[in-house]
Amino acid sequence: MQKRMLSGMQPTGILHLGNLEGALRNWVRLQEEYDSYFCIVDWHSLTTLAETPELIKKQTLDVAIDWLAAGLNPEKCTVFIQSHVPQHAELHLLLSMITPVPWLERVPTYKEKKENLNIESASYGLLGYPVLQAADIMIYKADVVPVGKDQLPHLELTREITRRFNHLYGEVFPECEALLTEAAVVPGTDGRKMSKSYDNAIYIQDSAEETAKKIKTMFTDPLKLRMGDPGRPEVCPVFALHEIYSPKDQVAWIDEHCRAGDLGCVQCKKMLTENLNEKLRPLRERRQMYADDPAQIEKILEEGAAKAREVAEETMREVRKAMMLP
Amino acid sequence: MQKRMLSGMQPTGILHLGNLEGALRNWVRLQEEYDSYFCIVDWHSLTTLAETPELIKKQTLDVAIDWLAAGLNPEKCTVFIQSHVPQHAELHLLLSMITPVPWLERVPTYKEKKENLNIESASYGLLGYPVLQAADIMIYKADVVPVGKDQLPHLELTREITRRFNHLYGEVFPECEALLTEAAVVPGTDGRKMSKSYDNAIYIQDSAEETAKKIKTMFTDPLKLRMGDPGRPEVCPVFALHEIYSPKDQVAWIDEHCRAGDLGCVQCKKMLTENLNEKLRPLRERRQMYADDPAQIEKILEEGAAKAREVAEETMREVRKAMMLP
Repeated sequence: MQKRMLSGMQPTGILHLGNLEGALRNWVRLQEEYDSYFCIVDWHSLTTLAETPELIKKQTLDVAIDWLAAGLNPEKCTVFIQSHVPQHAELHLLLSMITPVPWLERVPTYKEKKENLNIESASYGLLGYPVLQAADIMIYKADVVPVGKDQLPHLELTREITRRFNHLYGEVFPECEALLTEAAVVPGTDGRKMSKSYDNAIYIQDSAEETAKKIKTMFTDPLKLRMGDPGRPEVCPVFALHEIYSPKDQVAWIDEHCRAGDLGCVQCKKMLTENLNEKLRPLRERRQMYADDPAQIEKILEEGAAKAREVAEETMREVRKAMMLP
Repeated sequence: MQKRMLSGMQPTGILHLGNLEGALRNWVRLQEEYDSYFCIVDWHSLTTLAETPELIKKQTLDVAIDWLAAGLNPEKCTVFIQSHVPQHAELHLLLSMITPVPWLERVPTYKEKKENLNIESASYGLLGYPVLQAADIMIYKADVVPVGKDQLPHLELTREITRRFNHLYGEVFPECEALLTEAAVVPGTDGRKMSKSYDNAIYIQDSAEETAKKIKTMFTDPLKLRMGDPGRPEVCPVFALHEIYSPKDQVAWIDEHCRAGDLGCVQCKKMLTENLNEKLRPLRERRQMYADDPAQIEKILEEGAAKAREVAEETMREVRKAMMLP
């Protein structure tokens, strides 16, 4: 039997190359190996967007379309929206009873978020974010969870809660393992990490022309001012994208000629534009197809939720029995 | 249309005269006036009994039997178990997103419970107790909640959460009103407040003989040592029970003759035993009838839960729409 995997993402809106290379490519590969559940965690978004929920709905749909565009295949994996599976909330409540407050207060991202949100006081839900995350994972009895390094403390908390549950009520849940993903850091057009909030992102849904325009204005090695100047590919964000999207021999050729000073940035960017647009073409075609057919998206999400609910309810039956609820 | 009322009680096991006079008598009266929901809040019990859940199941059944014995009438009101209505957990999660942590930390009972439990650290669920209570009330759009004075801070928190929800997402919930119940304080056999933990309680399910035995050993005025001594009814717990369970003219007669010193405690207690057993007789008969017929209890609780779920799901549909969840 296949091992089970769960991963989730907040509905932050349309996805960029950073999301694509940081998570989605990996997921597309993993769906072949694991019984995979991909969850758009809209309830989690309420921990920071409770006052602007109108954003969440639109962004949830955008994320779903980009996931499918990137290659998540509903025939091979289960794609669904968290709030369509109310069992997550029930398990969250039960786990809240066995999770000590200090476990939550010591999570590094809690303090960070509190500061970033610029709010007087955190909501109870923000404090409990990792409990909901534990419920998301445990309700599918996930064996593995693909995460980046920054998510390891959250996952460790899920494992602690799992151990505590099993200790108190019997072995119901597997202790999930982290599937550490080494993903390329994707630079944005200004050389910083690609991020929606820096306004430096290239989006999956950008057209070929928009992509060309963004690459044209990309930062390069600041010491390479004109054609003849030798460049330093290791500090150039355009080169970093070549390393991800261009064929190996071309990357070597660019490295050599940039250093030699006989490859200009304009030509180098043109090559990147071509390669990137070519790589993104099938994704963009799929994206367009799904965007044009909202009924199909809805159907996929509804079928995903129905399957997720079935598994989740089966787990909850075991949980209620283990906890001897009447 | 009738106003709606909700009240709940933790499944603490078989109920005593303190529970009967402090809440149940009042509920039996209120079920005639209101569209009433009475909820055995087993999830709340997990905030303090998470490590001994086997107690909760048994105690839930005991509470249900005592409620029906006391006169809650399933034809007139809705009696159900909280965990049978998972919508409470979903609303709890959503409300957690708009409830600031300091609102919860300042609830007086939180600190008390933390100290009484003699635990190193409170669970996340214990901190969130009032959020779950708010969900219990709001999910039925209760207009009124019968409470004792000690519960007023909790209810005020429910009202604050209601206002915050309505402010953010539109007027979905009524702001519930406290129905302050002035209940007689029922003394236990040792003169302290009647309480299970003091081992001074007379239970609804006690037999007439057990009741007689308990009253025989009851504390009385410590200065009235023998027959001829004048007594002080105002300090005598037996007299306090007479005031609740004996006819008015008899109470006046006892007051007079106790003070005069010509009524002995043995006779006074015998009168109380007779009056109390007579008052409890119909309750005990009903109790026996239900205790002998677990299938009927189960049916009543299942029908209650079905009705509660219907109302709760209707509210959740409104809530999800108001919060624009996808």
